[in-house]
Amino acid sequence: MTAVVGIGITPFGRHLDRTIAQLGATAARAALEDSGLTSAQVEAGYVANALGGMLFGDTTIGQGILAELGIRRVPVLNVENACTSGSSALWLAWNAIEAGQMDCAIVLGVEKMCVPGLGLINSGRSEIDTQLGLVTPASFAMRAMRHMHEFGTTRAQMASVVAKSRAHGARNPLALFQRQETVADVLAAPLVADPLTRSECCPIADGAAAVVLASDRLARQAPRAIRLNTAVLGSGSYENLADMVRWETDSRTARQAYERAGVGPEDIDLVECHDAFSIAEILHCEALGLCPAGEGGRLAAAGETSLGGRIPVNVSGGLLSRGHPVAATGVAQIVEIVMQLRGEAGARQVTGARTGLAQCMGGDRAGDTKSCTVAILSR
Amino acid sequence: MTAVVGIGITPFGRHLDRTIAQLGATAARAALEDSGLTSAQVEAGYVANALGGMLFGDTTIGQGILAELGIRRVPVLNVENACTSGSSALWLAWNAIEAGQMDCAIVLGVEKMCVPGLGLINSGRSEIDTQLGLVTPASFAMRAMRHMHEFGTTRAQMASVVAKSRAHGARNPLALFQRQETVADVLAAPLVADPLTRSECCPIADGAAAVVLASDRLARQAPRAIRLNTAVLGSGSYENLADMVRWETDSRTARQAYERAGVGPEDIDLVECHDAFSIAEILHCEALGLCPAGEGGRLAAAGETSLGGRIPVNVSGGLLSRGHPVAATGVAQIVEIVMQLRGEAGARQVTGARTGLAQCMGGDRAGDTKSCTVAILSR
Repeated sequence: MTAVVGIGITPFGRHLDRTIAQLGATAARAALEDSGLTSAQVEAGYVANALGGMLFGDTTIGQGILAELGIRRVPVLNVENACTSGSSALWLAWNAIEAGQMDCAIVLGVEKMCVPGLGLINSGRSEIDTQLGLVTPASFAMRAMRHMHEFGTTRAQMASVVAKSRAHGARNPLALFQRQETVADVLAAPLVADPLTRSECCPIADGAAAVVLASDRLARQAPRAIRLNTAVLGSGSYENLADMVRWETDSRTARQAYERAGVGPEDIDLVECHDAFSIAEILHCEALGLCPAGEGGRLAAAGETSLGGRIPVNVSGGLLSRGHPVAATGVAQIVEIVMQLRGEAGARQVTGARTGLAQCMGGDRAGDTKSCTVAILSR
Repeated sequence: MTAVVGIGITPFGRHLDRTIAQLGATAARAALEDSGLTSAQVEAGYVANALGGMLFGDTTIGQGILAELGIRRVPVLNVENACTSGSSALWLAWNAIEAGQMDCAIVLGVEKMCVPGLGLINSGRSEIDTQLGLVTPASFAMRAMRHMHEFGTTRAQMASVVAKSRAHGARNPLALFQRQETVADVLAAPLVADPLTRSECCPIADGAAAVVLASDRLARQAPRAIRLNTAVLGSGSYENLADMVRWETDSRTARQAYERAGVGPEDIDLVECHDAFSIAEILHCEALGLCPAGEGGRLAAAGETSLGGRIPVNVSGGLLSRGHPVAATGVAQIVEIVMQLRGEAGARQVTGARTGLAQCMGGDRAGDTKSCTVAILSR
C-alpha cells in the first residue's frame, strides 16, 4: 500500500518574477517539509513539465530542482504527457512503490505559461487535426454542440458548471479566480468557440504542486498519511469518432480504477476532474458514473456537484477557477484531495470526506483523448 | 529477468521529408515485427523525445505513434531526460517488467533535429551556466584542457578516438558518417572550443530506435532474446566542481550497474558509451573501469577500443559517427548491443561477444552531469 505523506503547492496565477525551477522548488520543499521526512529518504523523483522546452528551451529540469532540496544521486525522471503530465508522474511513482522498488518518492508538477510565445494550446502543432483547425477549444465546442443536440443540455446548464466553479474558487486562497460569476455573467462573456464563452474555458497559469509518496512501512510513521489506493493510466482507443459525447477512454480508465480500488461511484465523497471547459466537467461526471449519460448538465445545474451537494466536484475551483498550469494540475488535484481527507480544507471543506477521486485527460487525437488518468485516495 | 526480444532502428541522418511520428513509427514497427509478438501483447509504451516541444510545439507524441501500430488503450509515457531520454525510457520499462507489473513493453526513442531553430544544444537555456556561456562544447573543452594538464593526454590521442569512430561508422550502414578520417584530418578541422575541433564534436541527426522488452515468461518463446541484466539511472552529486576529469556520477552509476549485474569491467565484450565529444569517450572509458584514471587517451591511441582490440568501444560509430538524435541515442545503443550479441552486426561484428554495456549521460549542471544511465546485456 502506498500513501501520500506530504503535500506542497504554490498559488496558481501569474508568477512573472519566478523561474520554473523556483516555482518547482517551492512546492517540492513544502511537500518534503510537510512529510516530516528528510531529503536523504527520498529514493526517486518524478518531475512533470509539459511546456518548458517549447517556451524556454529548458530540458531535464527535475534534477536541478530536486538538487536544491538535497535530493541528489537518485533516479530522476522528467515526464511529459500533456495535461496528464503530473498525474502520469504520480502513476510512475505509485507503481515503483507498489512494486517494492522503493519506499519513498517525490512527485512534482510545475508549469510556467504566462509568457509571450505560448500561442494556442494543443497537444501537437504538427498533427493534422491541429493544422486543420481542430484546436482544443474547437474540439470541445463540437462536443458541447453534440451534447446539446443529443441530450437537450442547455447553455445555462453548462454555464452553471462555471458559476459553481467560481463559488468554489472564491473559497480557495490558492485559486487564480477569486470572484463569483453568475450564469448570466458566463453566458454574456465573449464567445471563444460557439457555444463556449471565454468564462467556460480554463485560464492558463503559472504554478507548481508536489506530493511525497511513501510505502506502508514508511507511512506508518506519518500520522496524517492518506492512502493512494490506485492510480490508473490509460491511452485512447481512437475508435469512437462517431460519438463526440461518450469517451470510451475516459469511462474505461474510470472503470479500471474503481475495480482496482474496490469501490464504486457511490463511495466517492469528492471528485477533482479535468474541467478544462464547462462541457468537459459534464462529460467527465458522466464517464465517472456520477450520473447517467446525458445528465451531467442537469447534475451541475441542480447543485449536486456544489460544495454541500451530493457529490462535490472541483471544490478547489478546478481548472476553470484555480487555473491550469498544465503539468501542475494533476498533482494539484492530489494535493486538494489530501487536504480534504485530512480535514484541512478550510472554507471549502467537504464535511466528513473519506474517499476522493482525481481524474485528468491529456491530448487530442482523432476525436479521442490520448491519455487519461484516474487516482483514488482514502483515509 | 527481462529480455530484449525485438529491435528496430532507422538510419541516422537528415530525414527532411519525415515527421517525428513517421520516424518513430518506422522504428517501433520494425521492433515489434522483429519480436514476433503482436501489438495486443504490448502492455505499455515508454516513448522518449527531448526536443519536439522546443522545435515543433509537439507534446504527447508517443500515443499517436504507437496507435499507428495498433498499440492502444495501454499506458503510454512520454519521457524527457536530455541525452538520457531514451535510456531513461528503457529504465522505466525494465523496472515495470522486473517488478512483475507487466510482461511486455515497447521502448522508443525518436528525435528530429535537422531543422532551423535548433541553435546551440544545451540542457537548459534558463540556467545560469548556460547564460554565462558554459554551453556543452565549452564545458567539454574545459574537461579536455584539464585532462591534458593533469594526465599528459595529447590532442592526437583525443583525435584518435574520432579516427577510430569513423572507421567503425564506415562499417555501419545506418551511421551518418561513412568516411574515414585520420588523426591529422581531425586535428586540421576548425576549432569549436579549444582544444576540440569540429570533428571531435558529435553531429546532430534525425532518427529513431526501438526495442521490445519481455519478461522471462514471454521471452522463452523468443529464440533470439538477449538478457537485459540491469539498468541503472543515477543523477548528479554536484559535489566535484573542483575536479573536471573525474565524474563521480558517471563512476557511481557504473559501479551500481556492475554490482547489480554481478560482473566487472573485465567481463564486458563491447561498450556503447556517450561519446558526444572525443574527450567524453575518454572520460567514460575511465569511469567504466576499462582503464585506470587518466589512461583513456592512451587506451584509444593504442587501438585497444577499436574493433578487434581488447575492449571495442562504440563499434556502431557512436554519437561521433553514427550521429546523435538526442532521445534516440540511448535506445540505439541497446539495438547495437543486441545486434552484436545476436551475431548479426555484419562488418562490425565483435567476434564471440557475450556481454555488452551501454552508457549515457545527459544534461549539465554546475560542472556535473544531471543524469547518467548504464545498462548491461548478455546472451
